Amino acid sequence: MPIVLLTDFGLSDPYVGQVKGVIAGIAPGCAVIDLCHGVPFGDILAGALTLEFSPSYFPDGSVFCCVVDPGVGSSRRAIAASAGPWLFVGPDNGLLSLLWERHPPRRVVSLEERSFQLAAPSNTFHGRDIFAPVAAHLALGLPLERLGPEIRDPVRLSVPQVVRRDTTLHGQVLLLDSFGNAITNILAGDLDGAGEVHAAGLRFPIFKSYAQVAPGTRVALVGSTGRLELSVNLGSVRALGLVPGSPVHLEKP
Amino acid sequence: MPIVLLTDFGLSDPYVGQVKGVIAGIAPGCAVIDLCHGVPFGDILAGALTLEFSPSYFPDGSVFCCVVDPGVGSSRRAIAASAGPWLFVGPDNGLLSLLWERHPPRRVVSLEERSFQLAAPSNTFHGRDIFAPVAAHLALGLPLERLGPEIRDPVRLSVPQVVRRDTTLHGQVLLLDSFGNAITNILAGDLDGAGEVHAAGLRFPIFKSYAQVAPGTRVALVGSTGRLELSVNLGSVRALGLVPGSPVHLEKP
Amino acid sequence: MPIVLLTDFGLSDPYVGQVKGVIAGIAPGCAVIDLCHGVPFGDILAGALTLEFSPSYFPDGSVFCCVVDPGVGSSRRAIAASAGPWLFVGPDNGLLSLLWERHPPRRVVSLEERSFQLAAPSNTFHGRDIFAPVAAHLALGLPLERLGPEIRDPVRLSVPQVVRRDTTLHGQVLLLDSFGNAITNILAGDLDGAGEVHAAGLRFPIFKSYAQVAPGTRVALVGSTGRLELSVNLGSVRALGLVPGSPVHLEKP
Repeated sequence: MPIVLLTDFGLSDPYVGQVKGVIAGIAPGCAVIDLCHGVPFGDILAGALTLEFSPSYFPDGSVFCCVVDPGVGSSRRAIAASAGPWLFVGPDNGLLSLLWERHPPRRVVSLEERSFQLAAPSNTFHGRDIFAPVAAHLALGLPLERLGPEIRDPVRLSVPQVVRRDTTLHGQVLLLDSFGNAITNILAGDLDGAGEVHAAGLRFPIFKSYAQVAPGTRVALVGSTGRLELSVNLGSVRALGLVPGSPVHLEKP
Repeated sequence: MPIVLLTDFGLSDPYVGQVKGVIAGIAPGCAVIDLCHGVPFGDILAGALTLEFSPSYFPDGSVFCCVVDPGVGSSRRAIAASAGPWLFVGPDNGLLSLLWERHPPRRVVSLEERSFQLAAPSNTFHGRDIFAPVAAHLALGLPLERLGPEIRDPVRLSVPQVVRRDTTLHGQVLLLDSFGNAITNILAGDLDGAGEVHAAGLRFPIFKSYAQVAPGTRVALVGSTGRLELSVNLGSVRALGLVPGSPVHLEKP
Repeated sequence: MPIVLLTDFGLSDPYVGQVKGVIAGIAPGCAVIDLCHGVPFGDILAGALTLEFSPSYFPDGSVFCCVVDPGVGSSRRAIAASAGPWLFVGPDNGLLSLLWERHPPRRVVSLEERSFQLAAPSNTFHGRDIFAPVAAHLALGLPLERLGPEIRDPVRLSVPQVVRRDTTLHGQVLLLDSFGNAITNILAGDLDGAGEVHAAGLRFPIFKSYAQVAPGTRVALVGSTGRLELSVNLGSVRALGLVPGSPVHLEKP
């Protein structure tokens, strides 16, 4: 089963490559898939949102090695977990926790057993020295229990909830992707027949695909993650001033 | 045989990763190779030029999954094709058609058979929901005919042709690569002994390699694709104002 | 054993993809790992520093295909070498030589045997036409001697050495990574109890991890490569004016 990597390391440095080298040394035939290395540096919530809907597209048994870890070298715990048909490894800072809203963890352990980590791990690169070797051992079939004691209080993040007042639904932008789409906290099921969304003082008519509006035109649609997205066809909402946290609202008919 | 990916998705988001997850679920042992995810967003011609000369470097039987798809969710068809010793999957918008100038397609089919696609495909991400699963099934040996009816009118793009007037050959810049080389529509066979090229009011002497001129010096050469390229050794032609469409000419001796 | 790629090609163009296609054609089942394609264009020293400490994280027998090659098409030699438990292929311009300080080469050969290269190699893309096929043949087990005659004078680079005057140790910045950490020529063993480092007229207190200081605060630490790094926790030293070559000094207690 593949090991799937999610980090904020970027691809300009040799850091992701070293992680893959460590995995190749422990689990030689194991496929490694890059889910994303473009999480904004140190942005745990953005990483958690990137992970949230992705595992469903991966085979049962995949091992997700997730590293957005501004607290590396501090006393934050390192954890591994089973949730849905997958396994997860990462820092205990909430990075895995939005996924858990959809797939509650069956077991979470603290990575205290050093024999499945590199000898003399650095203080600054646990992705390579701790999380990668643990993920490789899990991919080889090591039971989760062998990695350390179970914990019951992993750190949880929460996404701001939508709020209804009378017939108005108030939400917000969570994340901008690199295409310039603004992904919101409003889910497909919240729309309930609404025809347009308001944000940044502008109207975004709701359609099913970008191509239903002319290039350069605003459009709202349910994106490939099941969340409402605000977009400009072949353009970007960045120019409209939308950023994470920008308020969004819609009138229910 | 490998599946080869060409998209305009970039690598900052989890989109390419999700495509690979879908492939891993259907064709677990199949190698997946990234040809390029840096095609400018929505630029079909740039994607077609990027694909044009690349398949020759890949093994017979490789399946190219190509997605530059500004019309996703509209009525544009989705297609698969055999051409040369390879297979191709993508939108029917001309993306595959420059390659076909060199390797005429033997069969093109419209992807109407839903059983080889994800259930309930999104309207915005056919790369993940339609093209990736079809490519995975082809890599497993599914015959092209099973995917849908044959079509005989796929969309074709054309590259602007070079024009000869008297002893002058007029061409143009097609594409700038990220090194700052300007790739033109003039082919090696058009040069015919010419010693220099003119563009942006400047002379570019023709050599065989960048290193034959001093750093910072202009040079023209037949690039690794067989097309004439205008370059600045260890520099970029962007600073000279060259862009796609800029006219280029040379005198035949 | 995997083939590991280190280049300055970036990921925006199809160049890395074509290299992988050539490898897949010669060594179909062979894993290919990207160490890094973000070496600054043509910067041999930066490439050599990126390679220097990386092989230790890869399995014995890995074949490193390294291409930072501003002299492509000139008379510079192409080489392959054995060093430590690994094999290396690349231009003879010093790119491999910092690694050799730590793992002296056992044998270096000049790639004069054309039968293990693509027919009619281009003058501008030896990564694809010469180095990739040679690496693939080595990964299949071809003995180094078959590639060409042994040479004893490969090009060597050197890293500027630290200098001690009285109780002051003078070093310099070698490289900035994309996180904004400045990697210096001072090694862990040079620190010898010093408590702070000086650079750009500023003090950097020495700690063990970024998280030991507040966000936005300067910190020096021994990075994951064993070199002293100057950092700003969750920030970048670029804003402080540090660049490769900037002087750094510390007082030994």
